[in-house]
Amino acid sequence: MAAEIVNPRSDSESRNGHQDPESGAEPLDSFDPAFALHRGGKMAVQATVPIRDKDDLSLAYTPGVAKVCSAIAEQPDLVHDYTWKSQVVAVVTDGTAVLGLGDIGPEASLPVMEGKAILFKQFGGVDAVPLALSCTDVDEIVETVVRLAPSFGGVNLEDISAPRCFEIERRLQERLDIPIFHDDQHGTAVVSLAALRNAARLSGRALGELRAVISGAGAAGVAIAKMLVEAGIGDVAVADRKGVVSRDRGDLTPIKAELASFTNKAGLSGTLESALAGADVFIGVSGGTVAESAVASMAEGAFVFAMANPNPEVHPEVAHKYAAVVATGRSDFPNQINNVLAFPGIFAGALQVRASRITEGMKLAAAEALASVVGDDLAADYVIPSPFDERVAPAVTAAVAAAARAEGVARR
Amino acid sequence: MAAEIVNPRSDSESRNGHQDPESGAEPLDSFDPAFALHRGGKMAVQATVPIRDKDDLSLAYTPGVAKVCSAIAEQPDLVHDYTWKSQVVAVVTDGTAVLGLGDIGPEASLPVMEGKAILFKQFGGVDAVPLALSCTDVDEIVETVVRLAPSFGGVNLEDISAPRCFEIERRLQERLDIPIFHDDQHGTAVVSLAALRNAARLSGRALGELRAVISGAGAAGVAIAKMLVEAGIGDVAVADRKGVVSRDRGDLTPIKAELASFTNKAGLSGTLESALAGADVFIGVSGGTVAESAVASMAEGAFVFAMANPNPEVHPEVAHKYAAVVATGRSDFPNQINNVLAFPGIFAGALQVRASRITEGMKLAAAEALASVVGDDLAADYVIPSPFDERVAPAVTAAVAAAARAEGVARR
Repeated sequence: MAAEIVNPRSDSESRNGHQDPESGAEPLDSFDPAFALHRGGKMAVQATVPIRDKDDLSLAYTPGVAKVCSAIAEQPDLVHDYTWKSQVVAVVTDGTAVLGLGDIGPEASLPVMEGKAILFKQFGGVDAVPLALSCTDVDEIVETVVRLAPSFGGVNLEDISAPRCFEIERRLQERLDIPIFHDDQHGTAVVSLAALRNAARLSGRALGELRAVISGAGAAGVAIAKMLVEAGIGDVAVADRKGVVSRDRGDLTPIKAELASFTNKAGLSGTLESALAGADVFIGVSGGTVAESAVASMAEGAFVFAMANPNPEVHPEVAHKYAAVVATGRSDFPNQINNVLAFPGIFAGALQVRASRITEGMKLAAAEALASVVGDDLAADYVIPSPFDERVAPAVTAAVAAAARAEGVARR
Repeated sequence: MAAEIVNPRSDSESRNGHQDPESGAEPLDSFDPAFALHRGGKMAVQATVPIRDKDDLSLAYTPGVAKVCSAIAEQPDLVHDYTWKSQVVAVVTDGTAVLGLGDIGPEASLPVMEGKAILFKQFGGVDAVPLALSCTDVDEIVETVVRLAPSFGGVNLEDISAPRCFEIERRLQERLDIPIFHDDQHGTAVVSLAALRNAARLSGRALGELRAVISGAGAAGVAIAKMLVEAGIGDVAVADRKGVVSRDRGDLTPIKAELASFTNKAGLSGTLESALAGADVFIGVSGGTVAESAVASMAEGAFVFAMANPNPEVHPEVAHKYAAVVATGRSDFPNQINNVLAFPGIFAGALQVRASRITEGMKLAAAEALASVVGDDLAADYVIPSPFDERVAPAVTAAVAAAARAEGVARR
């Protein structure tokens, strides 16, 4: 096809790891494999129907397409059957909380959003479109996504800073009948809970016996705390930069005040590191660091999930000196707490049954399914499956779809 | 990959031409090939980089992606090199003027937008994403597209009703430094001009000798009139539902008043059909009909371009009784005035040189290039090439890129 001839990617823009001399950009380390791989972007669109001749064109476009449009106009639900709507998710960000890099703006966030989109496809068979917005106002983001919603079967919110992310997600879900899912919150929480379930199983302990400390009261920290409480954790304390979130602190935002209301039954106060003394579980989602002495002060047989990316709060080699189970957010260490274990299957399951939202029950079902994949191979360096384990996405998809039906939010 | 296993398309949703009994939708004529083809939509997203193992994941996503994000944050132009931004176009509609169907809303417009997106890919190698918005207010559409702009290299506006389409395009182009192109206006005008140039060449006539009448003063009619005047047509009159647009009419919108200022030098008034008496060219973009007697009243050797879709203003068989050259907007008749001849190459050329806008010169260059493809094979039933002519998109792309450089809007 003509596409081969004129595709702008196939000329001087090809992924050869070198800068195009015409681009005017200053030379980078163009031999760095990350830059070489990102050259020209990481994704493309493809037709799934043939356009070989006039007959094909007459069906896929005018005049044939008109009757499909008319049918949807008369019977709106048909949009799910005759367009890609129910197979495509918008990956929406404003670029304010990108990885550990912070507020780097929409354009600079695009490589992450493209990465997310291709992980949706690769692991869940879900089409996804990166949409990095040039606005950061909550009202503007909400309005923008509401206006975009007719084209999408779901919305994955990504790398939007707290506390705006909570309000944006809540308001969008109130207004739209498609799933709204802030992955930095819930994806991280689902995978963390799955890993924790398996770590507890390995140690022969019940969640109710465990006291956890979370470093970071942002999107992930809040969501993990909620999910651990729902799952029956013994106690969980969350620390922000000023120390443990507790009811007696006078500086709490509304979100943290809510957090204080259902966490920290022990009434801890003071620093994160003091809270770690005797704790069974550390979950780091802060981007900060934790001193070796604080890890050493944890209870015997502790679990350390140091998930900050790209730099874990404590290096896994150091953590291993004291902890029974160590996990990170990185793909180059064992036990990677990687959201890619959850979000593709969660959306695939939700889309499969055209769920109107993603409920707590669906997330808990996803965590159970994910934990169960490990099965009898459970070990200290295997509390969570590899993202490349082909059993993961089907298991999560099926569990989420079943939970959606059970909870009455499925529409097929 | 897991994608094969859990892709929601590969289950009961497959394109077998039958309704899924679970979907709850009433049965349509599911053996109709248009419905069968549209089942599950017409497009998908694909990764263009491998994600086979942890090493791949470490480059395409965390931690490797972080350095690419940081580089773009420091040097914003790198977004063009290291993401798909400069290869992807948003196909934006509000569903208010879809084909000849009118205001059918965003969901019902999606099959057309998907079709447009795959034509972009197939014919221009340009990735495109359908975005059907749930708002119709000009301010809201403009704000929404401005907020989306960081993710896209250009915006193709589609099927937005007049006169809002004119203001939306103008305001977006004022605020954004990526090409904004309302294809219903300019794509149609480019292809019409190319066909008219070749029809004139076939008849041995200069554009300056010709008097044209356009039926329809909407998006396409206004744009065609402007382009014909720029190209040196002898005279052109435009008729709306109330008759020929002329300076002495008291009911003109601002757009039509502007139109009256540079068209209809002959000072015609009255009906469209009366204006056709003695005219050399009829260009129909109205969706209405023209009586055979009016076509019969045109000058000897007239050109009839009856481009309404799916129903031409006059059936080509009828037009052939009186006209030297007949064209339609349909793929099942000769001389199809099809925008797909223009928009893929226009955007491919603009994106190739990272043009900040699409100028009049770029559009004229596109029309020249498109007309030139016909070459020595020019004939009454071949004044415009087939969309499947593989020479078209490269010719348009090269001409548009060169014109962008000549006009100083190229950035590479």
